[in-house]
Amino acid sequence: MANIVRHPIATGRAKALVDKHSAEQPLKLYAGWFCPTNHPARTVQRTWIALEEKKIPYQYLEIDPYDKSPSFLALNPKGLVPTLGAPLPNNQGTKPLYESNILNEYLEEAYPTHTPHLLPKDPYERARARIWIDFVGARILPASRKLQTAKGSDEIQATRGELLKALKEFTAQMDAEGPFFGGKEISLVDIALVPWVARFFLVEKYKEGGLGVPKEGQGGQDEAVWGRWRKWEKAVLERESVRNTMSDEVQYEELAKQMWA
Amino acid sequence: MANIVRHPIATGRAKALVDKHSAEQPLKLYAGWFCPTNHPARTVQRTWIALEEKKIPYQYLEIDPYDKSPSFLALNPKGLVPTLGAPLPNNQGTKPLYESNILNEYLEEAYPTHTPHLLPKDPYERARARIWIDFVGARILPASRKLQTAKGSDEIQATRGELLKALKEFTAQMDAEGPFFGGKEISLVDIALVPWVARFFLVEKYKEGGLGVPKEGQGGQDEAVWGRWRKWEKAVLERESVRNTMSDEVQYEELAKQMWA
Repeated sequence: MANIVRHPIATGRAKALVDKHSAEQPLKLYAGWFCPTNHPARTVQRTWIALEEKKIPYQYLEIDPYDKSPSFLALNPKGLVPTLGAPLPNNQGTKPLYESNILNEYLEEAYPTHTPHLLPKDPYERARARIWIDFVGARILPASRKLQTAKGSDEIQATRGELLKALKEFTAQMDAEGPFFGGKEISLVDIALVPWVARFFLVEKYKEGGLGVPKEGQGGQDEAVWGRWRKWEKAVLERESVRNTMSDEVQYEELAKQMWA
Repeated sequence: MANIVRHPIATGRAKALVDKHSAEQPLKLYAGWFCPTNHPARTVQRTWIALEEKKIPYQYLEIDPYDKSPSFLALNPKGLVPTLGAPLPNNQGTKPLYESNILNEYLEEAYPTHTPHLLPKDPYERARARIWIDFVGARILPASRKLQTAKGSDEIQATRGELLKALKEFTAQMDAEGPFFGGKEISLVDIALVPWVARFFLVEKYKEGGLGVPKEGQGGQDEAVWGRWRKWEKAVLERESVRNTMSDEVQYEELAKQMWA
């Protein structure tokens, strides 16, 4: 990875957002614009979306995950991206937290007056949300990664099948009306998955046969579930917080061409 | 696994606890006495300990994970063990939840008046607890599983090294005094790991060279960290909720002899 040529900073809409959040703030997001790439738990965009949704003031600090600054490593010796610098009392600096889903639950709990709330209030529904967040990391993302690196028609077809099966199982659990997983409001379940869905255009472009989600009217016995998937996908990809945290498509394409070759 | 001969029900102290919790209750724990065996997220004992710690009324229902009853599969088609049957309002039955760490957070949230609280109140400390619960599942348990199935001196030595490294990293994050991970009180971090530690005696008995934690005074430059580990291990293994959810040692030995052969 270290030898991969990549743009040094965010571009497009994400660059505008970075600029808007360059001023000093007690809460700091140490991030890399092109993340997520590989590790399912370490997904900058998840936490970036949660911060934007809840309008929590934060300072964005660009970290090159393959060339980490000494000051960043001093804060978090593990050097994981994203890291939140959580404010210490009385402006005494920050202390580190990491793992994107855990960061998002932290934002819910540490900024309780900031809405929207991204987990249901009811304990059963909260647990159910966590089950499907877990499913994203345990089933969907490993399948997605396998498809990215699959070589040859047979392997691509097998891994595509695994990914589509996981997406169907996830979709079958969505609120019937939606458009989001849990209903009218976006939640951490949607946010756990959307960064990868926002990069599926790369699969369509660079993998033989693409992602393979059936087009409207071509889903056969799965027509209803894929219809629900398309409704969800449209809603999350049109969300401001998602669009504003994306760089120009061409930059992701440059990376995909190098990493998936 | 299906062909492995095992005792059909809990024995010893666990049997006494099962008998005590056989009466009908709105909250149901669908469990197998010998779990955990393989899957790190599906650990009956974690949730059983949390129920005992918080003294939440529950009904214990024994499920053979390899021969699931139709009524259990009707409740949870995924058939995962443990499953909690979470009470519906007005005694209208139950609805299923699963994944042991998620179940434990559910118990915290659904039974807020039951103490002890098993997560810190402070949002930063809660996030930190979740980071180290995640570390148990992502790093310690995979290493532990590899050691169980390792064959031959070289492989055993390499996998043992990986496990000890993860245990040291975990231990280094413990409260200095303890005895528990977070200090004087037990928490979900301790509970996430203790079921495996309670089975380490099998590694000592059936794996060449055993677990390899240095004895007192023999830890070299790691003496302090292993001292802290031993203090933690003693505290969690002596805990009533842990001892009461264990069957007779001989029953685990019967399984280990068959599974690790």
